[in-house]
Amino acid sequence: MQINVGKSDSHKIFFLKCISCNHSYEISMPSFISDILPKILDVEAKNLLRSFKNGNIKYYDNHGIQGLQFRKSVGKIEAGTMICFGDKMEIVRGFPKIRRTLMLYPSLKKHFNHVIAIEEKMNGYNVRIALINNKITAFTRGGYICPYTTKKAPEIMEMGEFFNDHPDLVLCGEMVGTENPYVTHNYREIGELGFRIFDLRKKSSNQAIPIKDKITLLEWYNLPGVDFFGIINVDDAPEIIFELIDKLGMDNREGVVLKDPEMKIEPLKYTSSNAHAGELEYAFTYPFDFGRAFFFSRVIREGFQAYELNETEEEIKKRAHIIGESIIYPMIRTIKHIADDNQASEDIIIHVDNLEEAENFARHLRDLGVVAIVHSFSDGKAVIRRIHQSTTDRISNFLRGGLY
Amino acid sequence: MQINVGKSDSHKIFFLKCISCNHSYEISMPSFISDILPKILDVEAKNLLRSFKNGNIKYYDNHGIQGLQFRKSVGKIEAGTMICFGDKMEIVRGFPKIRRTLMLYPSLKKHFNHVIAIEEKMNGYNVRIALINNKITAFTRGGYICPYTTKKAPEIMEMGEFFNDHPDLVLCGEMVGTENPYVTHNYREIGELGFRIFDLRKKSSNQAIPIKDKITLLEWYNLPGVDFFGIINVDDAPEIIFELIDKLGMDNREGVVLKDPEMKIEPLKYTSSNAHAGELEYAFTYPFDFGRAFFFSRVIREGFQAYELNETEEEIKKRAHIIGESIIYPMIRTIKHIADDNQASEDIIIHVDNLEEAENFARHLRDLGVVAIVHSFSDGKAVIRRIHQSTTDRISNFLRGGLY
Repeated sequence: MQINVGKSDSHKIFFLKCISCNHSYEISMPSFISDILPKILDVEAKNLLRSFKNGNIKYYDNHGIQGLQFRKSVGKIEAGTMICFGDKMEIVRGFPKIRRTLMLYPSLKKHFNHVIAIEEKMNGYNVRIALINNKITAFTRGGYICPYTTKKAPEIMEMGEFFNDHPDLVLCGEMVGTENPYVTHNYREIGELGFRIFDLRKKSSNQAIPIKDKITLLEWYNLPGVDFFGIINVDDAPEIIFELIDKLGMDNREGVVLKDPEMKIEPLKYTSSNAHAGELEYAFTYPFDFGRAFFFSRVIREGFQAYELNETEEEIKKRAHIIGESIIYPMIRTIKHIADDNQASEDIIIHVDNLEEAENFARHLRDLGVVAIVHSFSDGKAVIRRIHQSTTDRISNFLRGGLY
Repeated sequence: MQINVGKSDSHKIFFLKCISCNHSYEISMPSFISDILPKILDVEAKNLLRSFKNGNIKYYDNHGIQGLQFRKSVGKIEAGTMICFGDKMEIVRGFPKIRRTLMLYPSLKKHFNHVIAIEEKMNGYNVRIALINNKITAFTRGGYICPYTTKKAPEIMEMGEFFNDHPDLVLCGEMVGTENPYVTHNYREIGELGFRIFDLRKKSSNQAIPIKDKITLLEWYNLPGVDFFGIINVDDAPEIIFELIDKLGMDNREGVVLKDPEMKIEPLKYTSSNAHAGELEYAFTYPFDFGRAFFFSRVIREGFQAYELNETEEEIKKRAHIIGESIIYPMIRTIKHIADDNQASEDIIIHVDNLEEAENFARHLRDLGVVAIVHSFSDGKAVIRRIHQSTTDRISNFLRGGLY
């Protein structure tokens, strides 16, 4: 089915054309959502229609792609799913939310079948790369096309042959490095910008390729995967994972994702104390933007980790002090920074061909709801300034004597 | 106007009787709220009616008093306000929310006129005591009649003469001590149970008596006031308050309330670091019941206090460590406690005449939404067990391997 979109009376009209008999007809967007989409996605019409009415299924038209974007999940269809229209309809399912275990010992045995594959969880931003309209396109977690990632990913890895052979697969991975525009983290093996793939998933069904097949495919096409730490017996898992998490933490790395080697059971994540402290430190650098939302779950993880590790009083004290410092130090730094008449802002460095490309990216960030401007551009290096408005406004108000 | 209440067709009917001409008529509760209450309270009818429809103005009938309870504020009428019906209508206005300053230096000068009265802010529960239907009655902050406080307050202070002379005044104060059923805190000068008055307010208007007149009245009637630290010049205030807060904190006391001596400007509060840590410790003993709500504002206060005091690196470090310990230590203690097959609960001790009175109080707590049972009773001492259900349920679920 080919879908083109036109407008009449400010309503979107979808022009559908049957690929086999060439018959074409037109249908309004709400009718498409209530009559055709339920059959395609195998989801009840009333749920799709409710989501559309609540503004959670949105018409998307940007960066050369028209489609329907799922801002929230509907039934089994994940948030971040995109239904892309073109010569044919292509569905890129949202990346599933990975749940967290707080207690390795009982939860792994309960959740998995005998064996667990362990992979590194990296600290960057989740990207899905797929062939859409025969063009390699990168989607953010929320289902937005990221112009920067779409441009950069092909520069750092060669995907042509892979997508030629497997147009129905999606590369799911993490964009990482110090010069990435969303979440910067220094990995010595990566430097400025790199991509690490953790899943290969089927476009429409979101079915993930089993671990060993995935590793074989990635090796065959010379595509970079996340670190794989092996497949272990579920009984040995807690001990092995604690040792691994400890090492990763000391190396300032985030944690692990635990997977069913067959990829038939949903994966789980588990992270290092070091990662929790790092995230708190970031959140409390911008307390009124991120502090409240970030805080609670990180300290809960710390509590259960300390308990499961049966830590001594000294070890618990150290953990408590690090948590306290991760909250108080950055907050006081930011109060001082704003008292000196600055804004709470973050500078992001990206490499682009020209100023227009930088402006384009800043606009993309604003589309996502982020306050961002191009601060400077020279020699292909653009500095994008991301402004944390709530933190700036509220702290300066309190400094001027505003009441809480 | 005298109001009696009857029922017809499951709707409340108010029977009104004019005191001057004895004319009586009847009116339904919604009509009373839309036609009569606006004139009495000087609030727009549509706002009162909306609040009633949203369930924020409720018909109250308990402990011998019928009336209308304001669960949320409507215009200038505070949450916790009670319109009591009886021989005449008596309005006890809710206790106004006291806002907080984070930075003494600019805010006091901005907020007050030249001078500030300083009083101690105590750690207990806010109670308003008024003469209703010629009976001394104690209301909680939310506007519920507290049977325990109503019984205990007259045992610990003699209010008869005061209310005889001033039936139109409300005693606003803090019930404090180790054997109080809501917020226990040890004050050496109080012990098990005591009451300290901070405001005298007019029943219907909520107008507060100026500080010096209040002190004179309390002394005359031999009623206990909160500690009064004097009236100071606004320019000297930050330094004096920091010194005072430091002393209070070291003595494990909460902080101060800063008032316009004429009581024409709204008061402000400011609290010690010690109090913040203590509240965090309580909140993280029951993290899934209180942790999330308590946390953020306490650490923000710490940040601004450290900044305004221009603390050294060592002082900031100490503050950070105490905050971390106040979060992590109680949380791990509670996880261990629940792992040993216990509930997250608190035992409250109250002195009552018989088991029925204890059951009565437990029922009152349940009316307030608290899970509470009488755990034991002997020799006039009842142990009420308050159960923190979310903490109990969620922690035991995670311990059994539940996912986050």
